[in-house]
Amino acid sequence: MLGTTTIAPRLNHSASQSDSKETHSNLAKKPTETTIDARLNQELAQSKSEKSNIIWRMASAYSGDLPQLGSLAKRVSQNIWKVSNGKIELKFFGPGTLVPTSEMFDAVASGTIDAAYSTPGSWADKEPALQLFSGIPFGPSSDEYLAWVYFGGGRELLNEIYHSHGIQSILCGMIAPEASGWFRDTFSDPKELKGLKMRASGLGSKVLNKLGVETYDLQEANIFLALESGEIDGAEFSMPAIDLKLGFHHLAGQYYFPGWHQPSSFFELIINKDRWDSLAITSQAQIEAVCGDNIRYGIAEGEALQYSALKELTAKGVTIKRWPIGILSALKDSWKEVVIEQSSVDKNFNKVWRSLVDFRKDYAIWEELARP
Amino acid sequence: MLGTTTIAPRLNHSASQSDSKETHSNLAKKPTETTIDARLNQELAQSKSEKSNIIWRMASAYSGDLPQLGSLAKRVSQNIWKVSNGKIELKFFGPGTLVPTSEMFDAVASGTIDAAYSTPGSWADKEPALQLFSGIPFGPSSDEYLAWVYFGGGRELLNEIYHSHGIQSILCGMIAPEASGWFRDTFSDPKELKGLKMRASGLGSKVLNKLGVETYDLQEANIFLALESGEIDGAEFSMPAIDLKLGFHHLAGQYYFPGWHQPSSFFELIINKDRWDSLAITSQAQIEAVCGDNIRYGIAEGEALQYSALKELTAKGVTIKRWPIGILSALKDSWKEVVIEQSSVDKNFNKVWRSLVDFRKDYAIWEELARP
Repeated sequence: MLGTTTIAPRLNHSASQSDSKETHSNLAKKPTETTIDARLNQELAQSKSEKSNIIWRMASAYSGDLPQLGSLAKRVSQNIWKVSNGKIELKFFGPGTLVPTSEMFDAVASGTIDAAYSTPGSWADKEPALQLFSGIPFGPSSDEYLAWVYFGGGRELLNEIYHSHGIQSILCGMIAPEASGWFRDTFSDPKELKGLKMRASGLGSKVLNKLGVETYDLQEANIFLALESGEIDGAEFSMPAIDLKLGFHHLAGQYYFPGWHQPSSFFELIINKDRWDSLAITSQAQIEAVCGDNIRYGIAEGEALQYSALKELTAKGVTIKRWPIGILSALKDSWKEVVIEQSSVDKNFNKVWRSLVDFRKDYAIWEELARP
Repeated sequence: MLGTTTIAPRLNHSASQSDSKETHSNLAKKPTETTIDARLNQELAQSKSEKSNIIWRMASAYSGDLPQLGSLAKRVSQNIWKVSNGKIELKFFGPGTLVPTSEMFDAVASGTIDAAYSTPGSWADKEPALQLFSGIPFGPSSDEYLAWVYFGGGRELLNEIYHSHGIQSILCGMIAPEASGWFRDTFSDPKELKGLKMRASGLGSKVLNKLGVETYDLQEANIFLALESGEIDGAEFSMPAIDLKLGFHHLAGQYYFPGWHQPSSFFELIINKDRWDSLAITSQAQIEAVCGDNIRYGIAEGEALQYSALKELTAKGVTIKRWPIGILSALKDSWKEVVIEQSSVDKNFNKVWRSLVDFRKDYAIWEELARP
C-alpha cells in the first residue's frame, strides 16, 4: 500500500529496459514468420480436400486493435485456424459490423450469427447472474477465480444458465486487474462522490450508485466524447495499457487504483448451442484447448503490459492515486447491499453467489497458509 | 497470517460441502463419457487414412496416479491425442519405465526417447539456470511468473539454454504453492534447524544447507521409507493434496507452511529438437495450445484441491503450522547468499536471475497499485 509520492518517482526511470522485452503477440516473436506462413499455407492446401471446412462468423464486442480485450479475441480466431489445420475458421468481426454489440446474445441464441466474443457480464439484462462470471467487486483474483469456475461448481452453473438460452459458453480469456478510473478531481471522503457523473458498467456501477454517483454505461467510442463535452466527470473503462490507448489522460489527470470493481475478469466465446453440439469432438477439443490457452496468455500479457503503460502515463503528467481507506470501505459496504438486492430479485444470482461464497470461505484458509 | 489455533477449528467443519464439488479430471465431468468415446473412436477411424501418425514416447518424472504432477502429464498425452484427431500420440510412460528419471535430459537430447515431462529444475546438474524456471524461493506467484516467462524475456532465455543442448522445452503445467514440509518436531528459532536431516530438493535445499540442515534429494518412492527408518527427520515434497496421497502424515505430525521454496512451479514437456523442428506447424500449434491450456488447468485444479486435503489431514491429527517470522527471515537471508554463489559460478544463472530481478522491480509497482 503506498501513495502517489512514492510511486511517481519510481515510474520515472528509463523506459528502454522493460519496454523492449514486451511482445504483444506470440506470432510476432517468431523470426521466420514469412517462412512459417508459407509452410502453413502449403499444409493447409494439402489438407483442404480432406474434410469440409467450418466457417463461422464471430462478432467481437471489442475492436481488434484494443490491447487484451480485442487482441485476445483476434488470437482465438487465429489459433483456432492454426490448431484445426484450417478446418475451422472463426472469422473475426469488429463491434457493430455483424450485429449491434448489445444484440449479440440474441443473435447467437437464434443462430443469426454463429459465435461472439465478449464477457458474460454484458448480458446482465438477460441473466443478472452472468455478471458473477465476468468480474466481481472485491472478488477473487485470477487463481481463485479459475479454481472456483473449473473445480468449485462455477462452470456447471454457467452452463446451466446459458444452455437454457440455447447458447454454449466457453471461457476464453482472462485479464489483469482493472484500474478504478479517471477523474478531474481528487477525493478524500465518500461524501464527495455524491452527484458525480461517471462512465461505469456492471455490478461496479450499482455500487457507485449507492454512494450517489450517476453512472452511464457508454461504449468505448463514446466515453472520450462524453468526457470532453463535460457530460461526465469521470470514467472507468479498463487497465492502464488499454486506457492509455484510448487517450483518457488527455481529459482527466487523476487515475485511481485499485480497480476494486474487477480484480480479475473473464472473457468468453459464446456459440449457438445447436452448432456447438454438431461439431466433431476433435473440433470441440480444439476450441476448448485454444480458449484455455487464451486464458493463460491473457493473464501473462495483462500482468506484463501495465508497468510500461503506467510509466508512460506518468511521463504525460497523469497523477496516480490509490483511494483513501475510507472510500474503499464505503464502496465495500455498498457492494454488500447490492449483493443482497440482486440475490433477492434473481434466483440464479442468488444460487451463483452462494456457490462462490461457500468456495471462498474454504479457499481463504488455504490462501492464508500457502502465501508467504 | 495466522497460527494453528485459528486454522484448525475452521478445518474441522463438515467435509461434504466442498468435497463433492471438486472434479479431478475434465474427462470425468462429462456425463456421456462412453458415447463421447465411441464418437471419438469413430472420428479417429475415419481420419486414419488421411495422414501418417506421429507416435512418440514420453517419459514422465511422476507416476500417473499422483495428483497434479502425474495427472497433468497424463492430461497432456490425452489432450494431444484428442486435439490432433489421433494423429499425435504422446505415449505416457511412468517414472523409470523407459529410462531412469535422472537420464531423461540426455535421452531426449540424444533422441533415445522423443519427449519427457518434468520440471526444468530437475536438470540443475546440466544447467543450474534452469532451476529459475521451475520454482523460485521467495519468488513470484503464478501471475507474475507467467508474465515474466512469456512477456518479460524468460522464455527467450529458456529457449537459448535448451536449444544449445538440442532440446525444445514447452512449458506445460503450473501448480499451486507448495507446503514447506513435514517434521516430527516443532521449531521456534533458526538455530534449531542445525543438524536436522531432511528430504529437500532444488534451490530450497541449498537455502536449508546454509542453516545447517543436511538435505537429501530422494525420489518420491524413497521418502516414506527414509522417514520411517529415521534416516531423515523431516521431508518436503509438494502440496497438501499430493502429500496426503503419499502418506507422510503417518510418520510426521507437524506440517509447516508457507512453501517459501516454491510459491509457484512450472512443469514442462521437453522434446528432442530435431523431432520438434520436423513437425508440421499445425502439430506444433496443437502441442503448444494443449500445453498452454494445461497451465490454466493446473492452476485451477491446484488451488481448488488443497482445502479438502488440509481438512482431511487435520481430521487425521496433523498439526498445521506457519513458520515463525524469525525462521522465515533467516531462510530469506540464506536465499540471498545462495543467489550470489550460484550467480558467480554460472553465467546463465546470473543472466536469468538479472532478467527476473529487473522484471520484478517494475512489476512490484503495478502489483502495489492493482491489488486491493
